[in-house]
Amino acid sequence: MEKKDITIGLFGFGCVGQGLYDVLNHSQGLRANIERICVKDKNKPRSIAAGFFTYDKEDILTHKDLNVIVELIDNADEAFAIVKQAMNNGVSVVTANKKMLAENFRELYDLQIKNSVALIYEGSAGGSIPIIRNLEEYYDNELLSSVRGILNGTCNYILTRMELENKDYSDVLKDAQVNGFAESDPWLDVAGFDTKFKTLLLTIHAFGIVLNPEDIFNTGIQNITYDDILYAKQRGLRIKMLAVSYKVGDKFRVYAIPHFVDKSSELFNVNYEYNAVEVEGAYSCKQTFVGKGAGSHPTGSAVLSDISALTYDYKYGYKKLKKQIGISGKIEEGKSLIEYDFPIKLYIRYQDREQLNELEIISVEEEYKSSGTNYIIATVNFKSLFNIYDKRGNKLFICAI
Amino acid sequence: MEKKDITIGLFGFGCVGQGLYDVLNHSQGLRANIERICVKDKNKPRSIAAGFFTYDKEDILTHKDLNVIVELIDNADEAFAIVKQAMNNGVSVVTANKKMLAENFRELYDLQIKNSVALIYEGSAGGSIPIIRNLEEYYDNELLSSVRGILNGTCNYILTRMELENKDYSDVLKDAQVNGFAESDPWLDVAGFDTKFKTLLLTIHAFGIVLNPEDIFNTGIQNITYDDILYAKQRGLRIKMLAVSYKVGDKFRVYAIPHFVDKSSELFNVNYEYNAVEVEGAYSCKQTFVGKGAGSHPTGSAVLSDISALTYDYKYGYKKLKKQIGISGKIEEGKSLIEYDFPIKLYIRYQDREQLNELEIISVEEEYKSSGTNYIIATVNFKSLFNIYDKRGNKLFICAI
Repeated sequence: MEKKDITIGLFGFGCVGQGLYDVLNHSQGLRANIERICVKDKNKPRSIAAGFFTYDKEDILTHKDLNVIVELIDNADEAFAIVKQAMNNGVSVVTANKKMLAENFRELYDLQIKNSVALIYEGSAGGSIPIIRNLEEYYDNELLSSVRGILNGTCNYILTRMELENKDYSDVLKDAQVNGFAESDPWLDVAGFDTKFKTLLLTIHAFGIVLNPEDIFNTGIQNITYDDILYAKQRGLRIKMLAVSYKVGDKFRVYAIPHFVDKSSELFNVNYEYNAVEVEGAYSCKQTFVGKGAGSHPTGSAVLSDISALTYDYKYGYKKLKKQIGISGKIEEGKSLIEYDFPIKLYIRYQDREQLNELEIISVEEEYKSSGTNYIIATVNFKSLFNIYDKRGNKLFICAI
Repeated sequence: MEKKDITIGLFGFGCVGQGLYDVLNHSQGLRANIERICVKDKNKPRSIAAGFFTYDKEDILTHKDLNVIVELIDNADEAFAIVKQAMNNGVSVVTANKKMLAENFRELYDLQIKNSVALIYEGSAGGSIPIIRNLEEYYDNELLSSVRGILNGTCNYILTRMELENKDYSDVLKDAQVNGFAESDPWLDVAGFDTKFKTLLLTIHAFGIVLNPEDIFNTGIQNITYDDILYAKQRGLRIKMLAVSYKVGDKFRVYAIPHFVDKSSELFNVNYEYNAVEVEGAYSCKQTFVGKGAGSHPTGSAVLSDISALTYDYKYGYKKLKKQIGISGKIEEGKSLIEYDFPIKLYIRYQDREQLNELEIISVEEEYKSSGTNYIIATVNFKSLFNIYDKRGNKLFICAI
C-alpha cells in the first residue's frame, strides 16, 4: 500500500492534544507532523513555541497544505462546526469527541459519504484500547451478541479510591479534580453521560444501530455514598459504572448504569483509570480488552494510531451499519430495535421513600431501613427509569444486580 | 475500498477447519465460500457432503478459480510445502500453523515479497484474540517495551483444573486428551514449544526481531506435580505458563517458562482454555487482551477474520521488521539482539539433587527437602537453562518468580 505524508492541523492543546504532541514526537517512522495548532486562550502559557499556535480557526480550516484535521477541543458544538467545515473542504478528520460524535452521528456519517473523506475516532471510546478498530475490522463478520464494559475513567477512579481508601464520594471527587482525573463540572462523567455517548458509538460499530443520546438511559455515581461501597464490599462485590449493549431475541438493550460485579468477572480487577470492554460473539466467545481509559498519553496514542491509519487512507467501513441501512441509503431510527419494556433487578438507595414513586416497581425482594441509610432490592420496569432521567435533583443511587 | 469475492481452497478439516466451516456459513455479508477441501484420510466420516473433499493436494493447488488457500493441517512440514507452492503460484494464504511459521519465517517473508501475495495468520497466536493484527495496525508506531501472556490453552486448562480440583498432572492431562484440550502426544504443548513458537511470532510483530525457534528457551509444565500447585496456592499465587518478550536497555529477553502470578495480575483470573496477552508501550501503557485461546469456533473465527481481510487485499505491513531490516533488504539474525547472560530467580523442584548440576546457580535463597518433595529458590544464570533444553529425560519443574 502506498503511504503518504500527513500534515496535521490540530484543534485544542489540552490534556489529549499535548499527549498527542509528545507521542507523535517520539514515534518512529511515522511520516506525520503537526503544522499549526488552534487554541482559544491567548494568555495561557504553552509548553511549545508560540509560532505553532493560532487563535483563528480559519487559519487551519482554509490552510491549503493540511491533509488531516485533528479535533481535540472540549466544546462539542464548536467541535462539530470545525469537523463539518473540514469534511466539506474534503479533509479527513481524527477526533476523540464522543459527545460531538454521539449527538451528530447521522450528519457526520452522511458527510463522510458525500465528501469521500474519513472521520475516525479511536480515542473517543476506551482511551488507549483499540475497541472501535477491532469492532470494525476484526469482528466485521462476527455475529456479536454483547458489548459491555467500563468506559469512563473518572467514575472508575472515584469508585476504586472510595473502596480502597474507605473514603466518601465528595472527598475523592475533589481529589480527582485536583489530580486531573475529573473535570471542574464533573456531571457528564459522574452521571453516566460520557459512558452513554461511548455506548452509543460502540452500538453503531458492533450492531450497526444508530441511536440518539436520549434513547439511551443513563445514571451514574453522582449520588453514591460510602454506604453503597460498604454494601458491595461486605458481599465480596465491587461497583463498576458499566455500559451495556446486548441482544435479546430480535431486540437490543442498551444502557449505562452502575453494576455490582463479583470477583469471577474480568471487570472486578479493572481499577482506577483503567477501562475494559468485553465483546461476546457467537463464535469468538468472550473477549476482554483492558487498558488505560483516560490520560494524556494513552488517549494521545489512540489518536496517533488513527493518524497513522490515514497514511494508508483508512476509513471505517461501517459494514454492519450499511447492512442495517440496506438499499434505502438512509439511517433508520435505531430506537425501534431497542427494548424498553422489561424487568430489571436493581439496588436502589434512597433518602426519602417518595423518591421511589417515580419508578414502576414490580416487586421488592429486600428492604432495609435505618436512621442512616435505606435501600431496596427491587425488580423495576426498565422504561420507568426514564422518569428520573437527567434530573440533578434526584438523589437515588441505582445499581444493577 | 473495492471488495472482492473470495473462493477458498481449504487444507485440513480437523478441529479448526470444521470451526471455520461453521463460522463461515453463519457469517453475514462476507463474500467468501469454500470450494474444495483437501484431507488425508479417505475413510474418516465427514460432517459435510463428500463432493467437497479431495485427497490430492494438486486438485487445489492447480485449481484456476481459487484466490485464497487456507492451510489448517497439523503437520508443519507438509503445511510448509503447501503454503510455499500456493504463494509461488501467486495465491494468498491464511494459516494458523505457528510451528510452520516459526520454523520457516525468513523464507515465508521472502515469498510474500517475491510473489506480492499475502500470508496472514491471526489464528496462530492467542486463538480468538486479535493480537497480531493489533500489533501490526494499532501499535505500528508505538514504542513497545513488553509483550507477555498466556498463549497455550492446553497448559492453562491443565493448570486450572489441577488447582481448582486438587488433581495431579497425569489425571488432568488424560482428561484433557479425552475432552479435546490436549493432543495424544502433548509434548509440543506441555513442554512450552507451542508457547515459544507464538512468542517468536509476537516478537516479530511487536519488535521486528526474527529469531529461530532454538534461540528461545522454553520449558513447560511437563514435570509439574500437585506439590507445585500447592506451593503456589499456599502463597496466594497461581502458576501460569507464560511467554515473555521484553526490552531491557538495547537488548531483548525472550523466553517461555511457567511463572508464579499473584492476584493483582490481570493474568491471575485467566483460566481454563482462555489466553491473555499484555502489551506495554511507552505511551499507551499496559493493555491486556483476553479471549479463548483454543477451540474450534474461536480459532475458526480468527481465521474467518483473516479471510475477510483478504476481501480488501489486506497484507501485514511488517513495519517494525522493515525498520530492522533497513536498506540491506535482508533479515538479520535476531539472536544478536537477545540477552542471554542475566540472573533469573527460579523455583526449581527436583527429585535428584544431581539434576541441578547442569544449571549455573548463582545463589540459593531457600531450600526445602523432604521425603516427598525437594525444591530450591535460586538465582540462576539464564543461559545455563539451555543445558536442560528439550530433554525429555530431565525431571526438573522450573517456575519463574
